[in-house]
Amino acid sequence: MSKNVDKIPYKIYLEESEMPKAWYNVRSDMKNKPAPLLNPGTHEPMKAEELAGVFCDELIKQELDNDTPYIPIPDDILNFYKMYRPSPLVRAYCLEEKLDTPAKIYYKFEGNNTSGSHKLNSAIAQAYYAKKQGLKGVTTETGAGQWGTALSMACAYLGLDCKVYMVKVSYEQKPFRREVMRTYGASVTPSPSMETAVGRKILAEHPGTTGSLGCAISEAVEVATSTEGYRYVLGSVLNQVLLHQSIIGLETKAALDKYGIKADMIIGCAGGGSNLGGLISPFMGEKLRGEADYRIIAVEPRSCPSFTRGRYAYDFCDTGMVCPLAKMYTLGSNFIPAPNHAGGLRYHGMSPVLSQLYADGLMEAVAVKQTDVFEAAETFARVEGILPAPESSHAIKVAIDEALKCKETGEEKTIVFGLTGTGYFDMVAYEKFHDGKMENYVPTDEELEKSFQLLPKMD
Amino acid sequence: MSKNVDKIPYKIYLEESEMPKAWYNVRSDMKNKPAPLLNPGTHEPMKAEELAGVFCDELIKQELDNDTPYIPIPDDILNFYKMYRPSPLVRAYCLEEKLDTPAKIYYKFEGNNTSGSHKLNSAIAQAYYAKKQGLKGVTTETGAGQWGTALSMACAYLGLDCKVYMVKVSYEQKPFRREVMRTYGASVTPSPSMETAVGRKILAEHPGTTGSLGCAISEAVEVATSTEGYRYVLGSVLNQVLLHQSIIGLETKAALDKYGIKADMIIGCAGGGSNLGGLISPFMGEKLRGEADYRIIAVEPRSCPSFTRGRYAYDFCDTGMVCPLAKMYTLGSNFIPAPNHAGGLRYHGMSPVLSQLYADGLMEAVAVKQTDVFEAAETFARVEGILPAPESSHAIKVAIDEALKCKETGEEKTIVFGLTGTGYFDMVAYEKFHDGKMENYVPTDEELEKSFQLLPKMD
Repeated sequence: MSKNVDKIPYKIYLEESEMPKAWYNVRSDMKNKPAPLLNPGTHEPMKAEELAGVFCDELIKQELDNDTPYIPIPDDILNFYKMYRPSPLVRAYCLEEKLDTPAKIYYKFEGNNTSGSHKLNSAIAQAYYAKKQGLKGVTTETGAGQWGTALSMACAYLGLDCKVYMVKVSYEQKPFRREVMRTYGASVTPSPSMETAVGRKILAEHPGTTGSLGCAISEAVEVATSTEGYRYVLGSVLNQVLLHQSIIGLETKAALDKYGIKADMIIGCAGGGSNLGGLISPFMGEKLRGEADYRIIAVEPRSCPSFTRGRYAYDFCDTGMVCPLAKMYTLGSNFIPAPNHAGGLRYHGMSPVLSQLYADGLMEAVAVKQTDVFEAAETFARVEGILPAPESSHAIKVAIDEALKCKETGEEKTIVFGLTGTGYFDMVAYEKFHDGKMENYVPTDEELEKSFQLLPKMD
Repeated sequence: MSKNVDKIPYKIYLEESEMPKAWYNVRSDMKNKPAPLLNPGTHEPMKAEELAGVFCDELIKQELDNDTPYIPIPDDILNFYKMYRPSPLVRAYCLEEKLDTPAKIYYKFEGNNTSGSHKLNSAIAQAYYAKKQGLKGVTTETGAGQWGTALSMACAYLGLDCKVYMVKVSYEQKPFRREVMRTYGASVTPSPSMETAVGRKILAEHPGTTGSLGCAISEAVEVATSTEGYRYVLGSVLNQVLLHQSIIGLETKAALDKYGIKADMIIGCAGGGSNLGGLISPFMGEKLRGEADYRIIAVEPRSCPSFTRGRYAYDFCDTGMVCPLAKMYTLGSNFIPAPNHAGGLRYHGMSPVLSQLYADGLMEAVAVKQTDVFEAAETFARVEGILPAPESSHAIKVAIDEALKCKETGEEKTIVFGLTGTGYFDMVAYEKFHDGKMENYVPTDEELEKSFQLLPKMD
C-alpha cells in the first residue's frame, strides 16, 4: 500500500476567479503563419465572404485572424465553462509509484463532463456565435459521436437546433452515443440519408453503403448551406477550434504556475489537432517568444501517421472534396485508415497551425502501436482510477515511456500530458484487447505512395 | 442566453486540507438503535465470531458498533479518496433558471469517477480492511455492475484479487460494465456458474436460467467461506457501508458551511440506502441532537416501494435466504420487482439504520413514476450538462417538484440533493424513453400481500 505525501495536491483546481478570461491565439506569436485555406477551384486564399454561407461570421473572423494574441471569452461562454471547468490538473502520484520513476507526472483531465472529452470547449463557443448571429441551428457530422454529443449539449443549453449526420455504421453499432445526443434534443440522422441530394445520389449508386465521414460532411454542409438560418460547424482541424481549445493549456499553465512548477515536456494525442493544439498553445507561445523551452510531443497511431509519414502539402479536408484546401501534414484525402479503435485519431490530415509548427521544428511527433496503447491504458486505469479513452491513451503511452527513461537516467523531469477523455463508450475495443483479438495495422509505403499521388496538383 | 452571477460559485470544491478525516457513525446519535442482525436459525443476535467467516474482522467491528461517533479514516484510504474526492457540490443555477424558481438548488455529484457512482467510497474501505487483514481477495455479486466496477477499481489499486459473480442476463446484455471490471483485473463469472455447488444445483434444476441477484449472492458467499484467504463484501444495506458513505454528507455539510448556507431539505434516492444514508448522516446527526432541523426525503421507484408500501419486519437480505435476518422496511425477500431501469433501486429491503429513522418519523419517503423520472433526467441533462443515472434521477424528480412548489409559494428554500452517478451505461433505458416504449410498473396490493405472507415468522 502506498504512502503519498507531498506539498502538491493530487488535483490542482483553479478557483473560478483564476479561470482564463480570454483565449490565446498562438498564431499571433508564429513567425511563419499557417498557410491560408484555398478556394479549391481558383487556388486563391478563401475570403471571409466566400466562407459566410458555410460558417458563422464571428467564427470566420477568428479563423482568419493571425494577429490578435488574446480574444476575450464572452460571459455566456464563461458561465457555461463554469459548469464543468476548470478541469483538474492531476498529479499522477500513483502512476509515478507504479513506474518507480523520479519523474513528476501531471495530466490535464478533460473527461469530467458528459460529452466525455474536451470537444465541449469549442462546441459551446461555436453554438454561442451561431445563436448570437440569430441563427436557428447548426449542422455537423459525427463519426464515433464525441463531437456530436458535445455539440448537442451546447445547443440544448442555448436553445439552438442541432442536426447531426452520423456515419451509418456508427449510428447502428454505437446506439448509446446516439441516445445521448437525442437526450440533448439533437436530431441524429444516419448518413447517407434520403434527406439530401448528395445522400440520395450516394444511396442510388451504392445501395448497401454504411457511410463514411466524408459523406456525412457533405450532407451536413449541404443542409447548412441550403437551409435558411443554419450554418455548418466542425470539431477539429480549424484555427478557430484550436483557439477555443487554448482554454486547456491556459488552465494547465495557470495551475502549474500556482505551485511554481516548470514543465519539461508537454505530450498530447493528435488526430485533427484540437486537443494538442489547445494544450500546448501557451507553452508554445513562450517558446516562440523565446521566454522558455519545452519539448512538445504529438502522439499519433501507427495506423494513421499523418505527422510521421505524411506529406506537408495542400489537400482537401474531406473525402468528398467539397471543402477548401488546407496546407497540412496529410496522408491524402483518399487515405482510408484501417480499422482503429481510436476513432478520433483516424483523420487523414492535421491542423494547419500544428503542421506549420512541426515543419518549423518546434515540436516532435511519434507514432505508437495500438496494443501498446491499450496496455498503457490498462496500467493507467488500474493505478489512477480513470478509464481513459483510446485516443487519450496514446499520450499516456508516451508519458509512461518518457517516465521510464527518467528512471534509467535518474532525471526528475516534469511531464505534463493531456488526458482528453473517458473510454466508457469504447468497451468493445477494450474487450478485443482483453481477448487478445486486437490487431496492429500499419499502412505500407506503397499504400501511402498511391494515396499521395492523388494529392491536388498545385501551381 | 443566461446571465448567472452570484457570490456562490457554480461548483464548491473543498481543499484537500478541508476533507473529512473521519467517518461519522449516525447510530451513535440514535436513541432507538437499529435492530441487530439475527441468526436465521436461532433468531439470536449475530455475534462477531459468527460473522467472521463471511466478513473481515475490522468491518464486523464497524458493523456492530452503535456507539463510536467518529471513526478515523486510515491514511491509505484518504489517499485513495484524494484521487477522486472531494466531489463537487454544485449550485444548479441553470436548473433554477429553467424552472424560474426562487429555490436555491445544490447537488452533490458523486459520478466523477470511473465506477460512475458513490459505490467507490465503500469499495475502497472494504478492500483496504481485507488487505490489512492479510487476505488474498474478496468476492461479491453484482447486478447492473456499478458495485462490481467500484470494487474492481479498489482491488486493482491495492493488489487484491477480486471475484465478481454477475447475474448472467446482465453479463450478457451489459458487456461494457463487464469489460470495465476486466480492465481493472477482476474475474467476472456469469451466475449461476459451474464453479460453485449452489450454482451447479441451480443449473441442474433450471438449465436455462439467466440468474438472479439472490443466486449470485449465494455463489459469492460460498466461494468466500470455502476459499482460504477470501471474504465476502457487499455494496449497500449494511451499517458499515452507510458509515463509509458518510463521507458524502460530511463533505456536503463542510461545503455548505464554508459559504454559510443552511439547507432546508435533503433529498436522495433509496435502493438499499447506501447513498441516502451517507448523504444525510451529518444532517440527521444534528437533527437527532436537536441542533438543527431538516426535511429529509427518500425517493424510491413505484415499482419497488420498500418504504412507502413495505412492512417494517425481520426479513432475509437475500432471496437465497442464506444471510442473517435484518429488521427493515421490506417487500419480502421473494418479491421480484418488475423490470425497472434503475437497477440500483430494485432491492426488496432497506438499510436497517434508515428503516429505524423512518419508523421514528425522522424522515419522509416518496415513490415516483418511472417516466416522470426520465423526464426529470432529460430536463436536468439539458441545462446542467450532466447525464444522470436513472437511480440519481429519482432525486432530481423530487428536487424539481419541491423547487416548483417554491415557485408557487415564493419561498426561497435551499434544496440539496444527491446526484449519485452518471447514466453512460443506461442508454438502453433512455432509448426506450425517447421512443415512448417505457412502461410504469406498479405492484398490486395482492402481489405485495402474497409476498408479505412469506416473511419469516418471529417469536
